[in-house]
Amino acid sequence: MKNLNIVPFVSVNQMMGIVLEIGVERFLTEMASYIEEDFKRWELFDKTPRVAAHSSDGVIELMPTSDGQSYGFKYVNGHPSNTKSGRQTVTAFGVLADVATGYPVLLSEMTILTALRTAATSAMAAKHLAPEGAQTMAMIGNGAQSEFQALAFKAICGIKKLRLYDIAPEATEKCAANLAGFGFEIIKCTSAQAAVEGADIITTVTADKQYATILTDNMVGAGVHINAIGGDCPGKTELHRDILLRADIFVEFPEQTRIEGEIQQLAPDHPVIELWQVITGKAKGRKHPRQITLFDSVGFAIEDFSALRYIRDHLKEGNHTKLDMLADPDTPKDLFGMLLRAKA
Amino acid sequence: MKNLNIVPFVSVNQMMGIVLEIGVERFLTEMASYIEEDFKRWELFDKTPRVAAHSSDGVIELMPTSDGQSYGFKYVNGHPSNTKSGRQTVTAFGVLADVATGYPVLLSEMTILTALRTAATSAMAAKHLAPEGAQTMAMIGNGAQSEFQALAFKAICGIKKLRLYDIAPEATEKCAANLAGFGFEIIKCTSAQAAVEGADIITTVTADKQYATILTDNMVGAGVHINAIGGDCPGKTELHRDILLRADIFVEFPEQTRIEGEIQQLAPDHPVIELWQVITGKAKGRKHPRQITLFDSVGFAIEDFSALRYIRDHLKEGNHTKLDMLADPDTPKDLFGMLLRAKA
Repeated sequence: MKNLNIVPFVSVNQMMGIVLEIGVERFLTEMASYIEEDFKRWELFDKTPRVAAHSSDGVIELMPTSDGQSYGFKYVNGHPSNTKSGRQTVTAFGVLADVATGYPVLLSEMTILTALRTAATSAMAAKHLAPEGAQTMAMIGNGAQSEFQALAFKAICGIKKLRLYDIAPEATEKCAANLAGFGFEIIKCTSAQAAVEGADIITTVTADKQYATILTDNMVGAGVHINAIGGDCPGKTELHRDILLRADIFVEFPEQTRIEGEIQQLAPDHPVIELWQVITGKAKGRKHPRQITLFDSVGFAIEDFSALRYIRDHLKEGNHTKLDMLADPDTPKDLFGMLLRAKA
Repeated sequence: MKNLNIVPFVSVNQMMGIVLEIGVERFLTEMASYIEEDFKRWELFDKTPRVAAHSSDGVIELMPTSDGQSYGFKYVNGHPSNTKSGRQTVTAFGVLADVATGYPVLLSEMTILTALRTAATSAMAAKHLAPEGAQTMAMIGNGAQSEFQALAFKAICGIKKLRLYDIAPEATEKCAANLAGFGFEIIKCTSAQAAVEGADIITTVTADKQYATILTDNMVGAGVHINAIGGDCPGKTELHRDILLRADIFVEFPEQTRIEGEIQQLAPDHPVIELWQVITGKAKGRKHPRQITLFDSVGFAIEDFSALRYIRDHLKEGNHTKLDMLADPDTPKDLFGMLLRAKA
């Protein structure tokens, strides 16, 4: 019963240390298992909509969820103009707590962790949806999320060949340079059209776009799996509507995806399949080799919860900081006495 | 533009240091001014209802608000059975962030801070509502919040005499001992009835009760101000309904108080006066010496926001910890590169 005042904190540097010690690919693979486990338990989660505070510059959101044993929430902002001042568009941190006592058990940076969990979720979905034997992935958008996606698809789906394209050639150069030494065959392409040629999986992960058409209908052949990451808020999509009409669409939480995902372009009752139902066997994933499957990913609180669970399970001496965050008076009901004794 | 990764963190020990350095009474007085300022700006705040996750053992809540410039939220739990394991029933922490960038600017313990802001709010309300020249306060319930209440009423309203009562005599002993040396005349009473005799202000601040009747109708004479703190969640009240019918009732945020406060005993359209309207002069506070005024306090997000603002304004070298909480890659769009460089 000692140290009831302490909450373990994982800083940005400590998170990088944890990722590097475990190894990025193993980290992504293991975290994908945690996410998959939680998708299997989907129905028992408390699925509160995210609580958003909008302003002219951006949005601040709280994303809480609970499985009845643990409670987690993520604080995340989205401010596109932040890059002008050298800041990140998106930063995040999160807390995991014990439902039985309400005491936080982990405070963690989540900017890096969110990049990892997003990639792990994408690859976990593709494991259930992509064509068998997929080896080649086109990646359109080579920004901050791209390397994480590439490594998750390598580790979890066996992707060996990457076909990269970004409207900014320097982004492609950066992505290719960062991924050198990870064993990919990397092809730098000069158009999105060129990138998708021969790809089994197409990942679209562009940023800062309004309604954009990264993929047109003619670019998507039969049998492909599309992993659409970039369309993730109202007014931001990446795919031409006609692709959506040809594809079987898989989503995390329909109530949220219909507002934020690619399917905001479709009728509100357009059929979609919930990913957790594929994972539990309640719904079919890929049915035949010529089917176009689309994972319309927007990110959901349960994935953050899984990520925090994974980090909590990997806490050990030296990889986190002990924060004196909770009052723990020697007599529980004597808070003021604690203050007086601090004086003395 | 340096240290964009850093968020100042105020631990429990550091909070005690800040309170003791400023002095408890000055701290309470200054914080009450911050709260009063924010009540004056009431209408421009984003007043989201708190987001609660209930379980059989308790509740975990997120309480966000924003004035358009800053955004704040508090994480707070309520678990009555925690005392069995030596834990606090209520613990809390909070974050203040910059709306323009979404970047957190303060992470702080809020268990102690909430006790202080609750007391500051009570005394600030009483300044507007209590009978003129009030010098004597009865305090029924002498637990963790009681000393903070006493000192706030001394510093802000000029209370000199305390009449203490608790069903647990050891709580009264603890409260009286903690307050010795602060210049009060303290009378330890053996019943609630005895405590209220001659009191200008009655503070009820009992805990862990269901529908209880701490005050019956005959105990409350004309002209008294009642500061009702303990009735603060559904199913928990302290005052007999008849008292409510004789009093003018002042509340923080009616939508919340009708669910959580003493007025849950009344019809949903029973007239109440919003405290911010008294402070801005839109509504009358005390109208005549024989009027019974009641502040039906449940605690509101704006008070936490004011408290966090106050702490932020008092940050200085050495009284907080710099947490490496936000990713700050040398190239904003190269998160993975930061990880690679951490390896090297």
